[in-house]
Amino acid sequence: MSFQIHSSCANTSARTGTLTTAHGEIPTPIFMPVGTQGMVKTLSPDELTDVVDARIILGNTYHLYLRPGLDVIRKMGGLHKFSTWDKPILTDSGGFQVWSLAKLRKISEQGVQFANHLDGSKTMLTPELSMEIQATLGSDIAMLFDECPPYPCEEKYAANSLGLTSRWAQRCKDWHVENAAKHVPWMLGTEHAKLETHQRQLIFGIVQGSTFADLREQSAKELVSIGFDGYAIGGISVGEPEHEMIRAIDNAVPFLPTDKPRYAMGLGTPPQMLEMIARGVDMFDCVMPTRVARHGLAFTEDGPIHIKNKAFEFDARPLDETTHPSLQKYSRSFIRHLFRSREMLSLRLLSLHNLHFYLRLMAQAREHIAAGTFETFKDHFIKRYTKN
Amino acid sequence: MSFQIHSSCANTSARTGTLTTAHGEIPTPIFMPVGTQGMVKTLSPDELTDVVDARIILGNTYHLYLRPGLDVIRKMGGLHKFSTWDKPILTDSGGFQVWSLAKLRKISEQGVQFANHLDGSKTMLTPELSMEIQATLGSDIAMLFDECPPYPCEEKYAANSLGLTSRWAQRCKDWHVENAAKHVPWMLGTEHAKLETHQRQLIFGIVQGSTFADLREQSAKELVSIGFDGYAIGGISVGEPEHEMIRAIDNAVPFLPTDKPRYAMGLGTPPQMLEMIARGVDMFDCVMPTRVARHGLAFTEDGPIHIKNKAFEFDARPLDETTHPSLQKYSRSFIRHLFRSREMLSLRLLSLHNLHFYLRLMAQAREHIAAGTFETFKDHFIKRYTKN
Repeated sequence: MSFQIHSSCANTSARTGTLTTAHGEIPTPIFMPVGTQGMVKTLSPDELTDVVDARIILGNTYHLYLRPGLDVIRKMGGLHKFSTWDKPILTDSGGFQVWSLAKLRKISEQGVQFANHLDGSKTMLTPELSMEIQATLGSDIAMLFDECPPYPCEEKYAANSLGLTSRWAQRCKDWHVENAAKHVPWMLGTEHAKLETHQRQLIFGIVQGSTFADLREQSAKELVSIGFDGYAIGGISVGEPEHEMIRAIDNAVPFLPTDKPRYAMGLGTPPQMLEMIARGVDMFDCVMPTRVARHGLAFTEDGPIHIKNKAFEFDARPLDETTHPSLQKYSRSFIRHLFRSREMLSLRLLSLHNLHFYLRLMAQAREHIAAGTFETFKDHFIKRYTKN
Repeated sequence: MSFQIHSSCANTSARTGTLTTAHGEIPTPIFMPVGTQGMVKTLSPDELTDVVDARIILGNTYHLYLRPGLDVIRKMGGLHKFSTWDKPILTDSGGFQVWSLAKLRKISEQGVQFANHLDGSKTMLTPELSMEIQATLGSDIAMLFDECPPYPCEEKYAANSLGLTSRWAQRCKDWHVENAAKHVPWMLGTEHAKLETHQRQLIFGIVQGSTFADLREQSAKELVSIGFDGYAIGGISVGEPEHEMIRAIDNAVPFLPTDKPRYAMGLGTPPQMLEMIARGVDMFDCVMPTRVARHGLAFTEDGPIHIKNKAFEFDARPLDETTHPSLQKYSRSFIRHLFRSREMLSLRLLSLHNLHFYLRLMAQAREHIAAGTFETFKDHFIKRYTKN
């Protein structure tokens, strides 16, 4: 078993657990910083470990396949060695980026043909190729290749799309069982034996079905019957209102096995994540904390602040009283000055702070779930966070 | 005495020394990374200490006066506290930036009026104001406010400019003697007593005179008769050919006291700095190592390399075999990928590496001067560096 549940909460579905991967154990609930090009934007692997306390990061299959490409990744010994990040990595399937970045998409039973956003050249991404790329990258957790319907979406489109995703899920699983060990760099030769856990590459399913409860149920059941190491809820955070996002979770979770991790893709704000944890979600990823950092926004327990604000001109306090000790010395006044001067250090400090805030929130959630005080913690946090 | 000479070289004028400032001792020869907006671009104060081994950084009076402005600096307790950099700082006078960045300059006996490059508003910078800004910033070493003639320059213009610089030098010295202690944050109250050295703010003169030997001599003598804690050679690295740069040093150094530090402003390449050290120069500053880093260039003992080069696509070696231990794990292949993906981490790694290369070169120069092997070291270094 790669997933162990440790404690759960009386009045909510929140639970803590440990997910075991080839590159180490991950406590859940957990947030995964996004390392689009192999590393989290503006940050170094050492900072992710020492300041952020990241336990797993996400790599983007679409981006890494286009650049540097599989030849480089393969010759450099996989994504872990290439990026010098030796802790767990989850890779997405590339499907979401094909949908959001690529042009001239043509979806067929075989896969998706598209013109990539870098040089416009045509590429065909199939379930098998997505799995092969992820195996070559050597991620600890690979995601199945799905079609992500837009929001809003007609029920007929969503149903057809779901059918395709379920058929692709089977093809992904088949390829993975047959071929992963021949491509995953740390499963080849002696490397695997050296890793503490001896864990194979894991593969997660993705529940689709847009806003339709019966389709979410159908999707979850079809994936579970194929059998995956964990289950993501996809097709959320694509522009829908927050209540639809929560409904998508509510519509999927009851049909997922309790003994496998559940992953809400592309989420979210701190309150949204706490709401999802209360509904039994174990894993999150989102570009938001680093993307908004690059626009000058910092998370605090009293809600987000914009560092450009004139109110901080003479503010000698750190970004937040709870920020990491190594960031305490930087005043809001200094970070504001750096940001207004377009100095990269400001983007680094804001990114570090925001990810530290997110990972600290996960650690707090785990502690409160274990102590049986999660519901109170969640309510207090959200009340203070949303007061202003 | 704030400057102690420890050793000098048989066949060259190279020497080692220690410059004592309020925020610590600086070994010479030394290179000063440039922190234009209060911190070296892309880097953190901790990295400057832990990786680069920087002993002193340079702050730009012109930039910091315009933004964040003296109100912020004063209320935050000076530039050291504001930027969290607790080691020595040298500030330039602002004269060079007025010359290179500002528009609608009008030079008069009083000072320079200009439209600043940020919002075009008119500012008058005088010798007294430059000294007051530098005192308020609380730099360990302030530079006198000079006029920097362009290259090429008519002898008559250079002579007139020099006369003005000498008269401004006296006004700077007068203001400094009379007023510095009332403005330098660490000389006010108890802070000064707490600093190890109890050193006052130092003030350096700047030798001008363009390409004219007699003017360089005149300038040096006039400054020495006013009396400064150190002497810079200015008006170099302004577009002149390398032999003119070296001639400017040769024309000034013989007229400067041997027991004061000499500082070549705005230099240079590694071979240039070694040539200057051989001529008795003790201090350097330059934006080059960080600026070229942001364009993908890394210094190596075999000369500079451009990380974008396709030759490095599969290159698993670090940027240079001599780079800092914390940077050894990053392959050229990975840094190339990050640079091509416009990831800031690549600019950080290249900046760290280049500054480490510069500071290491200074440490090597000091060791070889002390061991009496500087001339051989210099010749071997330059031969290898320029071979390709």
